[in-house]
Amino acid sequence: MSHPLRLGIAGLGTVGVGVIKIVRQQAALLTARTGREVTISAISARSRGKDRGVNLSGYDWEDDPVALAQRGDVDVYVELMGGSDGPAKASIEAALKAGKDVVTANKALLAHHGQELAELAEAQGRVIRYEAAVAGGIPIIKALTEGLAANEITRVMGVMNGTCNYILTRMEATGQGYNALFEEANKLGYLEADPNLDVGGIDAGHKLSILSTLAFGTKIDFDGVELEGIQRISLEDIRQAADMGYRIKLLGVAQMTGRGLEQRMSPCLVPADSPLGQLEGGTNMVVVEGDSVGQVVLRGAGAGEGPTASAVMGDVCDIARGIRYPVFGQTADSLKPAPRAQSTLPAPYYLRMGLRDKPGALAKVASILGEAGVSINRMRQYGHVDDSAPVLIVTHKTTRADIDAALSAMETTDVVTGAPVALRIESV
Amino acid sequence: MSHPLRLGIAGLGTVGVGVIKIVRQQAALLTARTGREVTISAISARSRGKDRGVNLSGYDWEDDPVALAQRGDVDVYVELMGGSDGPAKASIEAALKAGKDVVTANKALLAHHGQELAELAEAQGRVIRYEAAVAGGIPIIKALTEGLAANEITRVMGVMNGTCNYILTRMEATGQGYNALFEEANKLGYLEADPNLDVGGIDAGHKLSILSTLAFGTKIDFDGVELEGIQRISLEDIRQAADMGYRIKLLGVAQMTGRGLEQRMSPCLVPADSPLGQLEGGTNMVVVEGDSVGQVVLRGAGAGEGPTASAVMGDVCDIARGIRYPVFGQTADSLKPAPRAQSTLPAPYYLRMGLRDKPGALAKVASILGEAGVSINRMRQYGHVDDSAPVLIVTHKTTRADIDAALSAMETTDVVTGAPVALRIESV
Repeated sequence: MSHPLRLGIAGLGTVGVGVIKIVRQQAALLTARTGREVTISAISARSRGKDRGVNLSGYDWEDDPVALAQRGDVDVYVELMGGSDGPAKASIEAALKAGKDVVTANKALLAHHGQELAELAEAQGRVIRYEAAVAGGIPIIKALTEGLAANEITRVMGVMNGTCNYILTRMEATGQGYNALFEEANKLGYLEADPNLDVGGIDAGHKLSILSTLAFGTKIDFDGVELEGIQRISLEDIRQAADMGYRIKLLGVAQMTGRGLEQRMSPCLVPADSPLGQLEGGTNMVVVEGDSVGQVVLRGAGAGEGPTASAVMGDVCDIARGIRYPVFGQTADSLKPAPRAQSTLPAPYYLRMGLRDKPGALAKVASILGEAGVSINRMRQYGHVDDSAPVLIVTHKTTRADIDAALSAMETTDVVTGAPVALRIESV
Repeated sequence: MSHPLRLGIAGLGTVGVGVIKIVRQQAALLTARTGREVTISAISARSRGKDRGVNLSGYDWEDDPVALAQRGDVDVYVELMGGSDGPAKASIEAALKAGKDVVTANKALLAHHGQELAELAEAQGRVIRYEAAVAGGIPIIKALTEGLAANEITRVMGVMNGTCNYILTRMEATGQGYNALFEEANKLGYLEADPNLDVGGIDAGHKLSILSTLAFGTKIDFDGVELEGIQRISLEDIRQAADMGYRIKLLGVAQMTGRGLEQRMSPCLVPADSPLGQLEGGTNMVVVEGDSVGQVVLRGAGAGEGPTASAVMGDVCDIARGIRYPVFGQTADSLKPAPRAQSTLPAPYYLRMGLRDKPGALAKVASILGEAGVSINRMRQYGHVDDSAPVLIVTHKTTRADIDAALSAMETTDVVTGAPVALRIESV
């Protein structure tokens, strides 16, 4: 048997504690499967004294994650602190420069600095693995990078933020509005310290940009993700969508089109009886389409101690087994810049707006849509609320650009109250 | 860049041709992702002259797969002939002894000879990879062996024979009986040369035995799989199941219980609105449950040229990248014999039988069930057919052993006509 693989773990939140539990409780299994003992040399976190429900006395303590990353008795630096910059980035760079492999769950860091970190890792002959960064326990990074490596990937899509999915599914189940469910999610500890990372779609956008790079061999381009959060989804939208046989999901889609790479993360309507439509609560689902394999769907828990620690330790097992390849599956210098193609693929849209109670208001809206080239499939106006009447419109297939043009034109009139909601209806 | 990885391909059916197409059409992508050129040195099949719709003139021809496997210009021997013995086994052994790695789609061979082949491969320092052997294009072998390697797996289950699923879903959709759909599947070329491999559950049983070994670290034990085919499923069963909100699926379940390893492949009732219940046609689904990750579900095409070739080439890419580990994830000598535990886990059962039209027949059946300790949840007797009246019974949770005892007792009476059908109702 080879010598043990020694970990240094920075960040002792839920995931870090989960990793420690697996290393302890599954020691025999890890050794049987990887041929090596997996041990922990040292740990680091912000607060040393905090009770984390697990005995840490056997591990050396480092206050500074950079010092942890550079220790001579650490083979793999496991970064679980999070943050798109700061100590996470500094310590990973230090680890790579000191000749350590890296395992991280940090999607924000990869989305913003993935290219330079990959270049550094490859120059140092080290690996960075990040299965836990996308879709929790689902081994989607591995499936895309390895299992489906012989495929030209045509589309990747998925529901990858459990908190948003929790809020949206609970709105439908309980009949409570967005704000009440946001508070509930907050109380349950489901929200990031900056909740906009979740409900603004940023966290899910980070994940999508990582999947795009793996799927299409393009340089990571988080800024190229069209981002829209769920903050403006009302109970009325949830109900109307349900009434038409749809559910609203924060859906990410990355697709290589003739004009370039389209990446978007936005609330969409999907058929209620489709696998994506049926996803409840914190469950994630990723759909991959390849030229040979057709469609492959993976589903599982998107967060939580066990699932995320499972993904981290899957990466550790790979390193223990000697599985090594470039950070994004192919060398960082072979990744091509992604030409951005936003909103080129047409789809039907769901529109909701309030109309002022005055003659000709509906005709005005219909005519603006017509002028923008947006054709109406279904339209429904119903009960007044104060002096505003809600109107729902389902369009025929159109582009986001045409929808946006129409919405802009509506803003210049005095017939529409408030900002209209426009949601893509995705065929999945 | 390293030297090319050179393949020798034996078997030029659908999958072999699919592999050749990928090697040609995706050459640039394979090189970008693996860092090596992937080439084909030589091929072998039964009939040299046959038109396979792909130009084979650039490859050397070998009549004998063993000779192909031993060629000096072959690094990886790709066995796609099939068969649990004979040329497939002989050529793989020859390849390993000649220092070649092996990629195969041959579940029958692994189910029957996996242990000895793994021992040979490991003694020779070679790998055998077989992603295509289970669930076509779904990267389930990789997910189980690598991605979920840090989990103690508690249960693996799935629908893994597309032909059976095709017949069963078409029975419900068309209202045609088993025999008509069997003929249709035959005409479409969906059936193995020996159709019993499909409809008898043997092919799916082979796959399940491979997953069990990976999940539980046990020696492969195909003979330990309780096998039951779909031949006795009638349209009536399909309809009655649908009426109660279920679908009938040929479902494989492998589970480690207190008494040992339970492996069964049999037609079961599953909720119609569950992911397994919604599977249509040739689609496969595998569900893995692990102590940390919870439940992970993978779905995709279970057969066909593209999906199966995608899996074969995924293995080839791994070898090109230098990914190597023991055949069943841990060394062959560390796999433990699997203690067989059949039918220990209770479940509700669906029973259908014909009763002779005589007084007291129903009471007799009810009393036999009661004596066997089987408690009745629902019972329904309906329209006579000739002198036999069909009776449907849904039991409360019971064991297969108690059901079998009751069925045996019924056979000794003169009130039951024909052999009763007993199907487990699986909670999924």
